[in-house]
Amino acid sequence: MANKVESFELDHTKVVAPFIRKVTVYTGAKGDSLTKFDLRFMQPNLEAMNMPGIHTLEHLLAVYLREEALGDEVIDLSPMGCRTGFYLTIWGDRESSEIEEMLLNSLKKVLTTEEIPAANEIQCGNYREHSLEEAIEYAEKFLNSYK
Amino acid sequence: MANKVESFELDHTKVVAPFIRKVTVYTGAKGDSLTKFDLRFMQPNLEAMNMPGIHTLEHLLAVYLREEALGDEVIDLSPMGCRTGFYLTIWGDRESSEIEEMLLNSLKKVLTTEEIPAANEIQCGNYREHSLEEAIEYAEKFLNSYK
Ligand SMILES: [Zn+2]
Ligand SMILES: [Zn+2]
Repeated sequence: MANKVESFELDHTKVVAPFIRKVTVYTGAKGDSLTKFDLRFMQPNLEAMNMPGIHTLEHLLAVYLREEALGDEVIDLSPMGCRTGFYLTIWGDRESSEIEEMLLNSLKKVLTTEEIPAANEIQCGNYREHSLEEAIEYAEKFLNSYK
Repeated sequence: MANKVESFELDHTKVVAPFIRKVTVYTGAKGDSLTKFDLRFMQPNLEAMNMPGIHTLEHLLAVYLREEALGDEVIDLSPMGCRTGFYLTIWGDRESSEIEEMLLNSLKKVLTTEEIPAANEIQCGNYREHSLEEAIEYAEKFLNSYK
């Protein structure tokens, strides 16, 4: 297991987006586990999200996933460098089915969002690069195609 | 602490990049801790990295940070939606000073890299969007300005 990069193990030509994939479970020395999920919005190597929309989705999902989870369960929600999705890291050994409702509820909240949280010079590293329109478009696409 | 998004707590107008910042320590129910670090390459709201360079750095740092760490210590290394840096999540309650050597050594390896690992249709979600030149430029900039 050491030095393995788990995302490099996925065959990106064999997947059909959108999907939620349990990537890996990490277990600490004292027995706490955490699970990393691949939240894939776009078909690898065929589509990609634009950065303003990804950035806005990052802000919105950071808030909404934490609202859907129980308190401090969410460890990290980060975009992928390939612009096709996000990684979600959460406490516990979880299944994709447990994440599904959290994500779908969060994406539904995106659809009715009117203001991007923390999109200002103080709280954000690139406050000019946001697009609520794109974020809503990507959330809608996920919700419409997810089975 | 619940539902807080820790990156929204930083005053982005008060920092001077590049820097390594200990963002937060999470502790699980059984007592395992993990630390999230902000590895900031660019000055918030003044500069940003291009996506091909970020994507290549993501691939390279995923490998090199795991080589520098002890086995499975690295949980996640992801770009920020604002394109100014990366978040690194690692087991243990760590200090920035412990991460510094790992990161600087990894960035030095970037400078002499000749091939991007896993930059192909099978292993990557956007294999056409890479730039080793930009990745080297950003690594060099960090190494030259980091104090
Ligand atoms: Zn931001
Ligand atoms: Zn990639």
